[in-house]
Amino acid sequence: MEHRTAAIVSMGDELTLGQTLDTNSRWLSQRLVEAGIVPVEHVTAPDDLERIAAVLARLAQGVDLIISSGGLGPTADDLTREALARAMGDVLVEDAASVAQIGSWFRSRGREMPVLNRVQALRPARGEAIENRNGTAPGLYGRIGEVHRLEAGATGFCDVFCLPGPPREMQPMFESFVRGRLSPPAGRVVITRVLHTVGIGESDLAMRLGGLMARDRNPLVGTTASGGIVSIRIRYEGSEARNRAEAMVERAAQEAAALGAPHVFGGGTDSLASVVIDKLRRRGERLSVVESCTGGMLGSVITEVAGSSDVFWGGWITYANQTKREQVGVSARLFAETGPADAPGAVSREVAEAMARGGLERSGTDHCLSITGIAGPGGGTEAKPVGTVWIARAWRSAEGIQTEARRFAMGGDRAAVREWSARWALAMLWLGLEGRGEVKLLRQVE
Amino acid sequence: MEHRTAAIVSMGDELTLGQTLDTNSRWLSQRLVEAGIVPVEHVTAPDDLERIAAVLARLAQGVDLIISSGGLGPTADDLTREALARAMGDVLVEDAASVAQIGSWFRSRGREMPVLNRVQALRPARGEAIENRNGTAPGLYGRIGEVHRLEAGATGFCDVFCLPGPPREMQPMFESFVRGRLSPPAGRVVITRVLHTVGIGESDLAMRLGGLMARDRNPLVGTTASGGIVSIRIRYEGSEARNRAEAMVERAAQEAAALGAPHVFGGGTDSLASVVIDKLRRRGERLSVVESCTGGMLGSVITEVAGSSDVFWGGWITYANQTKREQVGVSARLFAETGPADAPGAVSREVAEAMARGGLERSGTDHCLSITGIAGPGGGTEAKPVGTVWIARAWRSAEGIQTEARRFAMGGDRAAVREWSARWALAMLWLGLEGRGEVKLLRQVE
Repeated sequence: MEHRTAAIVSMGDELTLGQTLDTNSRWLSQRLVEAGIVPVEHVTAPDDLERIAAVLARLAQGVDLIISSGGLGPTADDLTREALARAMGDVLVEDAASVAQIGSWFRSRGREMPVLNRVQALRPARGEAIENRNGTAPGLYGRIGEVHRLEAGATGFCDVFCLPGPPREMQPMFESFVRGRLSPPAGRVVITRVLHTVGIGESDLAMRLGGLMARDRNPLVGTTASGGIVSIRIRYEGSEARNRAEAMVERAAQEAAALGAPHVFGGGTDSLASVVIDKLRRRGERLSVVESCTGGMLGSVITEVAGSSDVFWGGWITYANQTKREQVGVSARLFAETGPADAPGAVSREVAEAMARGGLERSGTDHCLSITGIAGPGGGTEAKPVGTVWIARAWRSAEGIQTEARRFAMGGDRAAVREWSARWALAMLWLGLEGRGEVKLLRQVE
Repeated sequence: MEHRTAAIVSMGDELTLGQTLDTNSRWLSQRLVEAGIVPVEHVTAPDDLERIAAVLARLAQGVDLIISSGGLGPTADDLTREALARAMGDVLVEDAASVAQIGSWFRSRGREMPVLNRVQALRPARGEAIENRNGTAPGLYGRIGEVHRLEAGATGFCDVFCLPGPPREMQPMFESFVRGRLSPPAGRVVITRVLHTVGIGESDLAMRLGGLMARDRNPLVGTTASGGIVSIRIRYEGSEARNRAEAMVERAAQEAAALGAPHVFGGGTDSLASVVIDKLRRRGERLSVVESCTGGMLGSVITEVAGSSDVFWGGWITYANQTKREQVGVSARLFAETGPADAPGAVSREVAEAMARGGLERSGTDHCLSITGIAGPGGGTEAKPVGTVWIARAWRSAEGIQTEARRFAMGGDRAAVREWSARWALAMLWLGLEGRGEVKLLRQVE
């Protein structure tokens, strides 16, 4: 049978009660879209047998494929095994191969299998267990049958794959077992494309895109704003030949890129960091950072990108003012505690520029980014409220070292102020490398 | 009417297709649990009018309260307004106050309201618009009536609050408008408590907890493993007087803490970083970091904690080997490119210890943590595969500077290797401060 549509399910009180963030559903959705299967719903269910079984049975009426994660652990709140059996109208039996695999997993670590883990070898009698090479929880495969689907006017089965919750067990199990069992409809093509913009708001971008965003078009074009980045999403879904569909998506992407230019900085999995790193690599230039309120986040975002070592020298986390003075040579005169009464203070254009210049000189790199601000919740004043951030950039030119600095009034909580600061430092560098330093960024005030 | 149970809904193709991570559902769940209302399901729906309306109508049969986020933007793929009206059996009308508010939002930024944004002022005729002080999208409130619920044997209404997607608009709107309208059942008490452990696996911890984890107990005790941290979750739900219920949860927490000791490092919103910072603050000691493969992530995790400036001096991002030599004085002899043929190399006990010692000496702090490893996907060798990470810790004692280093074989992708490394550096410091440096950590091999 064909898998036209799918649902993603995640299990656990820790998710429904908000104690843990679900990242598995996103990952699984990405994999299904790649394969040409459209996820139409995500559901998170608590550790409650009745509810999980009801969610599986209900979803099975409307989709051809369910992939779940979580609830396969060894403890009493792990209920996916029993819920799947119930939704299938089946009973649980012990899977001999799973008992052996769990036992050898423990033995290879020099231990006997704890009694508790034996429950992980249970599977629905008409289902299959899926070997877990990275943990003790086998996955499960089962079919929820026609009895449920006939009520909804559908025919055939709904295939259900239940995977463990930890991403490093779930992901390899998906790749090695589930991916090969996916059967997207023959001739069904789904192609998605994303373009990312910076320095333009969502409604301004939508007005530029105009009729391209009509809801009856295929490819369908939409926009999403997240953390100051507005992304253009393009999706073709239909039965055109793949190369023709790809050409349609390509044409829509080119049209959108032309309408969104010059704000479009990349597409797909590109980030400001990856785009900046590629640009610097092509120019043979190196980058350093000097961070205060972000405390290393900018460096962390840069080094998320594999291969960033080609251009990233490293930098300084100058969280204390003492560190700013001793490590990158910011003058003591600029700080309130060591300078004159009218010293500009740690969060100022002067200190931001001195940090970037000092970092550039001491590292010998071609570019240096610095950030100093008040992330909150404490530390704000009337003149410099929480969210005040100065970001500076220093670079070398024929005329010597150049600097620019911008002041931002970042909204949101401590985490948001820090994330925006790291992102906008990279946006400033991108704009600078593009020769478009005049473009203002969202929340920039100076 | 009372809000006994709730559902959380998030809207958007970017979520169902896995292009964006949903963090709103967790945040909203946390707020409802605080208020004594149990979220029993999260659903993510695509930008599809029929589906969103169907999700709202279905959920309204089973819960008393729905809170949604997203789909209130100005573009054609923002369909929450229309879906809510449809689920209510209502029509959309223009809300005069919203038109005025959106207009003044733009005017205060020196602009006219774009024509496109006028659609954001629509609301169901029997519903209410909710002012947005941080963006252009008003929220919506409406009731889905008895007609739906009677089918399910329930009475009364389901209250629906639709909030905008961006967290910095959604969160203040929840606080200023929704929180005051929540009506948890009189006498209904929900109390949750979480304890966090390090250095013990989930099934070992479950065996220690034993009967405390029986599913028919109240408070209910469960465990969740995430990134090497196993958390013990305790939840009371019932009609006992609040102080009695709190005493029951406190007793269960004490029992769990005693059974889990000495692995319990904190509870609630405590993290390894916050616990270590508190400990250092009480001891009047300061901390610095020297990071290679994590590129600033350890500093970022430390400075996530408000008040970390009391103890955190800052540090160095020594991503390039040149930076390790020049900035913290690691001997050139230790690196393959500048040392002898049998030099230990950048990822070695020797370099990790030299980084921590150099950082300690140059910063003058009391503790320094260093990380050097191979995050991948490239750079691995047979002797040092991807995931090989050395973490060192240096500190001062009466006998002079002391160091310890541990080698780990971290699993997972680049992001996982880096996250585990930053977390385990803090775990090593916590164990050291507790005088329990002998406890092995998960994935430690030396």
